[in-house]
Amino acid sequence: MESQFIAWLRQRLHGHRRLLLGPGDDAAVLRLAGGSDCVITTDLLTDGVDFLLDRTDPRRIGRKALAVNLSDLAAMAARPVAAVVSLALPHEGALELAQNLFEGLLPLAERFDVAIAGGDTNTWCGPLAISITAIGETTARGPLTRTGARAGDRLLVTGDFGGSIRGKHLDFEPRVAAALLLHEQFDIHAGIDCSDGLSLDLARLCAESACGAVIDLDCVPVAKAAFEIAEEESAGVASEAPQPTVAENALRHALGDGEDFELILAAPSRQAAELISRQPLAPVRLTDIGEFVADRGLWQRRAGSVLPLKPRGWEH
Amino acid sequence: MESQFIAWLRQRLHGHRRLLLGPGDDAAVLRLAGGSDCVITTDLLTDGVDFLLDRTDPRRIGRKALAVNLSDLAAMAARPVAAVVSLALPHEGALELAQNLFEGLLPLAERFDVAIAGGDTNTWCGPLAISITAIGETTARGPLTRTGARAGDRLLVTGDFGGSIRGKHLDFEPRVAAALLLHEQFDIHAGIDCSDGLSLDLARLCAESACGAVIDLDCVPVAKAAFEIAEEESAGVASEAPQPTVAENALRHALGDGEDFELILAAPSRQAAELISRQPLAPVRLTDIGEFVADRGLWQRRAGSVLPLKPRGWEH
Repeated sequence: MESQFIAWLRQRLHGHRRLLLGPGDDAAVLRLAGGSDCVITTDLLTDGVDFLLDRTDPRRIGRKALAVNLSDLAAMAARPVAAVVSLALPHEGALELAQNLFEGLLPLAERFDVAIAGGDTNTWCGPLAISITAIGETTARGPLTRTGARAGDRLLVTGDFGGSIRGKHLDFEPRVAAALLLHEQFDIHAGIDCSDGLSLDLARLCAESACGAVIDLDCVPVAKAAFEIAEEESAGVASEAPQPTVAENALRHALGDGEDFELILAAPSRQAAELISRQPLAPVRLTDIGEFVADRGLWQRRAGSVLPLKPRGWEH
Repeated sequence: MESQFIAWLRQRLHGHRRLLLGPGDDAAVLRLAGGSDCVITTDLLTDGVDFLLDRTDPRRIGRKALAVNLSDLAAMAARPVAAVVSLALPHEGALELAQNLFEGLLPLAERFDVAIAGGDTNTWCGPLAISITAIGETTARGPLTRTGARAGDRLLVTGDFGGSIRGKHLDFEPRVAAALLLHEQFDIHAGIDCSDGLSLDLARLCAESACGAVIDLDCVPVAKAAFEIAEEESAGVASEAPQPTVAENALRHALGDGEDFELILAAPSRQAAELISRQPLAPVRLTDIGEFVADRGLWQRRAGSVLPLKPRGWEH
């Protein structure tokens, strides 16, 4: 529903002289009077979709609500500055819940030097919803966008993918420091954060860059949690019919689970080779998982064979 | 619950070098790299509290969600620049609802030259919630705050008060143009917008300015809608006991209903007299309804007698 709505909305919106970069990227960039560029992003998290309040420490929920916004700023290689936090709280236990949410997000805000600038706190008859808007600044190189990937660029990712439901979707580290370092010291053409699924977010980056990408399946860094889920899934199958191996199933999770909040990047080939060899983000690993190509669409490559890859992930 | 939570939160928050003005005013002011000052405010509106979806055209709801943010920027005498819009939509009819909300807010955004910079659109099992964050710029005189009222200042208001539930709470005009004109051309010491109730918001302004205020009851501009409600209420009373007059009851609505979204201002006495005589906002009326005093607290004055006035309004 969200993609359909965004397509409708983009037709309705005119450009605006203050909007250097509008809807369609991880965040928008505004030019303010006085000349500063302000990066703005917002995420609304809801009970039952982004978290399960009855099974989760509210501090982890509050932390996540801020972290997803910081991840969007990271995808733009923007430096976080401030955030505003709005809550719709169920009436019962509202004060304690609000306090616990903030106990979770305040340490993250402090660590990333984010000023909590305000918010709006409400009680209602509905379930918990948290909306955070974060403000960042562009650095000297300007924002990193989704539009700069070119055929021949290598496809790089931070960290590993899949199985985030086991905990990473709540406790992940927003890749702010990684993005700032890479964008400042290296030549990165384009970037996006993986919120909805590696293949789906890569497809979005490709669409904005008007190109395609080939993923080398054997190179995708698959998280331990994805293997654990895959193992449990195959243990539960009683069928005599041939089943995908655990490794195949884990890879499927890596390509489509989402909420990894890792960076997906396009870098020119020589630069990419240097990054892979130097690993400047250690202990966070940078992996080369394929390349960008002129043909639009996504492709999967293994043992010399190239097949189309259907983007999969979370559709809002 | 909100005031209790804000008191707790303000103890937990440290200042931040980028935060020129933090939680406690109508909006925050951030100093960005490059020197621009960015005014930021956010409001979350929920079904059953701020509107009734089953009885209201969603276009009016979308309009209101943006207008309340513009009213906060007006209270700071900030010029609106951009907004981001997040929606939590019930699954059924989500796309049409989202479109209708935007059909309502887009014309207002255009009229106030506000760029829609992005957002987050979600469906869930809960009722409708809309969160909008607006960004503004300070003008040459800097922000208008809640802290500058001084004993001896006159208490001025725009428009009239009470009975907003009859329609004004959805269709009000954010006083952006009025605030910009007054702040640029006149000496205004402090301001707040009336969202929760004339007496309650005035008490908040007084608390931030460390002073008190006396309202001349006979000077309060009472809206026609407040009289209508008061008349209906007295028509429904069968008691033989003495009842307040319709006029008294209407005044009570004006002092405590809230959602008038008018400006409450402090201006030095001579300046106030000039404003009242010149009426520079016509056809919007500026009214002098009392004065700020050194004694903390709110007071009501009529026929020479001064009594304490208990602030009333919407407590979140």
